[in-house]
Amino acid sequence: MKIVVDLQERSYPIYIEKGILTNVNQYIDLQRKVLIVTDTGVPSKYSECVQKQCKEATIVCIEQGESSKNIENYQALIQKMLELGFSRKDLMIAVGGGVVGDLCGFVASTYMRGIDFINIPTTTLAQVDSSIGGKTAIDLGNVKNCIGSFYQPKAVFIDPNTLDTLSNRHFYSGLVEALKSGAIYDQELFELLEDCDVKEQIEEILYRSLMVKKAVVEIDEKELGLRKILNFGHTLGHGIESASNYELLHGEAVALGMVKMVEDESVRKRLVRVLEKWNMPLEYEYDKQKSFEYMLHDKKKVANMVSVVQVKEIGQACIIDMTQEELKVKF
Amino acid sequence: MKIVVDLQERSYPIYIEKGILTNVNQYIDLQRKVLIVTDTGVPSKYSECVQKQCKEATIVCIEQGESSKNIENYQALIQKMLELGFSRKDLMIAVGGGVVGDLCGFVASTYMRGIDFINIPTTTLAQVDSSIGGKTAIDLGNVKNCIGSFYQPKAVFIDPNTLDTLSNRHFYSGLVEALKSGAIYDQELFELLEDCDVKEQIEEILYRSLMVKKAVVEIDEKELGLRKILNFGHTLGHGIESASNYELLHGEAVALGMVKMVEDESVRKRLVRVLEKWNMPLEYEYDKQKSFEYMLHDKKKVANMVSVVQVKEIGQACIIDMTQEELKVKF
Repeated sequence: MKIVVDLQERSYPIYIEKGILTNVNQYIDLQRKVLIVTDTGVPSKYSECVQKQCKEATIVCIEQGESSKNIENYQALIQKMLELGFSRKDLMIAVGGGVVGDLCGFVASTYMRGIDFINIPTTTLAQVDSSIGGKTAIDLGNVKNCIGSFYQPKAVFIDPNTLDTLSNRHFYSGLVEALKSGAIYDQELFELLEDCDVKEQIEEILYRSLMVKKAVVEIDEKELGLRKILNFGHTLGHGIESASNYELLHGEAVALGMVKMVEDESVRKRLVRVLEKWNMPLEYEYDKQKSFEYMLHDKKKVANMVSVVQVKEIGQACIIDMTQEELKVKF
Repeated sequence: MKIVVDLQERSYPIYIEKGILTNVNQYIDLQRKVLIVTDTGVPSKYSECVQKQCKEATIVCIEQGESSKNIENYQALIQKMLELGFSRKDLMIAVGGGVVGDLCGFVASTYMRGIDFINIPTTTLAQVDSSIGGKTAIDLGNVKNCIGSFYQPKAVFIDPNTLDTLSNRHFYSGLVEALKSGAIYDQELFELLEDCDVKEQIEEILYRSLMVKKAVVEIDEKELGLRKILNFGHTLGHGIESASNYELLHGEAVALGMVKMVEDESVRKRLVRVLEKWNMPLEYEYDKQKSFEYMLHDKKKVANMVSVVQVKEIGQACIIDMTQEELKVKF
């Protein structure tokens, strides 16, 4: 399956196909210098499989986890490419989850003012969500994604086979973003997630989730309006994730964030039913004051008001402004 | 005078007017958080003049000189804005020369994935050249501009009165970029620089130089083709500038780079005549091997070939590929 994200001269294809990892060179010119970035949580066979298809590829493996999205790793990658003599015509490839994709994408967007970037997400979370949309970022101190850019990849390759090596916890927590996409924009996707065996129907789920993201991103690439609906569950979720010191996975924190934000009782029940089926934690002890403060550092704040996303009916989201005080009690 | 650089949704105006520094708030919303970045070489009255027009502005003054375009200053500015609670709706203003503009622009392009940026160049070099075109950058180690982005300002304010506080050396070396613009694209501008009293005609010179840059940038915003002609004198110039440890000013190094690249004898004579009038150094002792190696780190290199700009007739440039060996003897 192929989806084209249509952003004029920044358009790019997403390929979804079991086994496509072994065929990347049929779609992309790999006869140049290539830097492959992966992390210690990703089976090395995936990056090695890509390396074998290249003429001249170097693999850099960073430590897994959010704390690797830091300015030191950013600088080290730039330095590495300088040492290897990378020009503006060369290529970076991310093989892994959102951390690798965000970091690698930000390096690609700023090395020599931008070089080609390919994303090969290998986690559910990255495949349904973070690998497309063009958001790149690193963190500074405790402030997540405060440095970054909008930079589109040249292509995204999604190989559902790579999900086989994920733990159930990682597999299902990543699917929370698919559930979010259904909740805000696609009732049928939500129903699919309620009813089907997600492992069997994974390609359909990936496809539908990406179609939601494509639709939203094409209308609002730079998050000036509509795109904010993708943040459903994230305003609280990011705060909770930070306050947990990343003990919670991103999807787990977003799951908590969605449930806490929803006001409609029947929507909440349907959300909870799916999340329970997936063994997501619906109770979690965290420092409410601390997570509120992290949230205030979040970019969605303007003056005293915070834009948040509400879902009143499955498949339909709206953006409302809440005061900091109104939001604080939601935690 | 007003020039609009037409880049669709990234279009922006350049205002050229004596005294406009005191009226920035008539053109731009300054009723938000503002970070003004300037350096120790810029009279503080300029940044203070802008600050007075803002509701809530903080001035950060960095050390003057190329070495300030480093990742530590980059990180410190981001940190400062986080501390001050800057959101994506707030504003950065650069008041100074190219160093301040490049650094501040890069921070603005990546803070929360991009916030508004205003450029107020106060040197000849920045007014004729670096303040427009959307190139932002910092250096890593000895490699100039290896980190950066294409990011357009919301507006550029050029107040020729600020040039009164420049030394003659800085004033004239900045004009070398205007001479370059004439040489590659605008014969009449070149003749104006040959014949007129440049201090008297400065507004006309600024205007014509910016019109050259506008024309080129509008056709090729991201330097995929035509825009390379703006690099006339720069391939060698950057190498010489680095090898001089920035003892040479940018314009002085570019002057040497232009003279060394030109093959046509009459073009060279005309260039030299103007440069002599401006007291530019036409002889300079530097380490040729070292400057060649710096040049090889430059982004214009692809494989063994280097794209360089030749001027065979005043007002007309062409881009040719030279081997590293051919280029080495030019130093």
